[in-house]
Amino acid sequence: MTIAKKTARLTVVGAGPGDPDLITLKGVKALRSADIVLYDALANEALLEHVPVHVPRVFVGKRRGHKPLDQDGINRLLVDSARQYGHVVRLKGGDPFVFGRGYEEMDYARRQGIGVDYVPGISSAIAVPGLAGVPVSCRGYSRSFWVMTATNSDGSLSSEVAQAAQNEATVVLLMGLAHIEAIVALFEAAGKSDLPVAVLYHGSRPDAHSVFGTVKDIVQKAQTYTPGMAGIIVLGEVAALGRQLTADGVMSSVLG
Amino acid sequence: MTIAKKTARLTVVGAGPGDPDLITLKGVKALRSADIVLYDALANEALLEHVPVHVPRVFVGKRRGHKPLDQDGINRLLVDSARQYGHVVRLKGGDPFVFGRGYEEMDYARRQGIGVDYVPGISSAIAVPGLAGVPVSCRGYSRSFWVMTATNSDGSLSSEVAQAAQNEATVVLLMGLAHIEAIVALFEAAGKSDLPVAVLYHGSRPDAHSVFGTVKDIVQKAQTYTPGMAGIIVLGEVAALGRQLTADGVMSSVLG
Repeated sequence: MTIAKKTARLTVVGAGPGDPDLITLKGVKALRSADIVLYDALANEALLEHVPVHVPRVFVGKRRGHKPLDQDGINRLLVDSARQYGHVVRLKGGDPFVFGRGYEEMDYARRQGIGVDYVPGISSAIAVPGLAGVPVSCRGYSRSFWVMTATNSDGSLSSEVAQAAQNEATVVLLMGLAHIEAIVALFEAAGKSDLPVAVLYHGSRPDAHSVFGTVKDIVQKAQTYTPGMAGIIVLGEVAALGRQLTADGVMSSVLG
Repeated sequence: MTIAKKTARLTVVGAGPGDPDLITLKGVKALRSADIVLYDALANEALLEHVPVHVPRVFVGKRRGHKPLDQDGINRLLVDSARQYGHVVRLKGGDPFVFGRGYEEMDYARRQGIGVDYVPGISSAIAVPGLAGVPVSCRGYSRSFWVMTATNSDGSLSSEVAQAAQNEATVVLLMGLAHIEAIVALFEAAGKSDLPVAVLYHGSRPDAHSVFGTVKDIVQKAQTYTPGMAGIIVLGEVAALGRQLTADGVMSSVLG
């Protein structure tokens, strides 16, 4: 009797913004059918409870004191794991296609002849503001939203922030805390001193908290940035709405 | 013996883009704990299988041949239902805060003294492109994405489409099919005739399909618009990637 070799395949799964209940049913099904799971630091480790006990799980993110795998190393590990084990589930925070490098991993695997699949995740760009009571769009306040990483790969401020300051969209900035003074200066220069701003720290983790203000006072109100601090900055009329919805403490999801 | 009156409360839940497995675990838990469910046409009715059998479910969307409730009517029904039944779950397609009027409903209920909560959903604006192999962001192709409804409430083309044509962001247009000729004209005028475009019909429904082209040929390639046709238009370098990832038929999620 021979054991049929499992088909090598890759499913890239979005884990959502941190709360382990914010993964999809389809994501849970993928984890249950995994032959090996590769996950990064952004995904909540409680999600691994969906993985059958005997299935190997491999941490491939950044952890203090350890040299992380580079993207080429992760790509090769994904393909090698698929060939050795069968169904690789690659668990990534948020949605794999929102600044998640999910496409690069799928494309690499596809070129190596591995079948690929994508399971969307709840994007922090929409849900983290939402959980703080800030809708990225709202009739009468905002007709569009523009999501960007504020920081280029070399650490400098993205030129698109200046473009966004000239437009009407709600602007959602990921990785912007280190540049918050330069960011508000661009909005000041565009005549938007009184535009509402929300700074949302630590996503949907238990220590999540929000600071609300305007372009002219948010730097003074926000915490001093320390390297590694996670946060999302929302600039737009909708940013003022969060304070209202959470004012009475009625929005329990904000508290976890 | 008296029966304790249930606490009136409202949870607005995102149902995701159509595939009933793309709701979150938290959304399922909300449906299981509902005393009444109000849902619209965008949510897949298979999701109602999570609702306990004895719990009333009320359709409040638009259906041919019936006059729909207006927003004020829905707001009042939400509050009345909470007071009469207890926990109202309001199920909405996609994410409630992405052009979903979720904030308006929560704000109305809050002002009436009803506790409110939000459960994020998978937004069609990110997941529908993703399921067609188009990542809204991708290193080397796009550093940001800008999501908007192309059509104003009076049926005219949004002025923000012209603004977006002048910038570098991936542009994701909801409700744009009726205006596709005017939209590509704005991108042509911005010197972007060769910019890739994807038109994604019918979200993650079983009859979903995609058309790929460029600003100069997409109108000829796309289907003739008929009123009520649902579709998302993506303009940006990333739009060309979908054709690659799905070329070998390896991405099974595209097929359902």
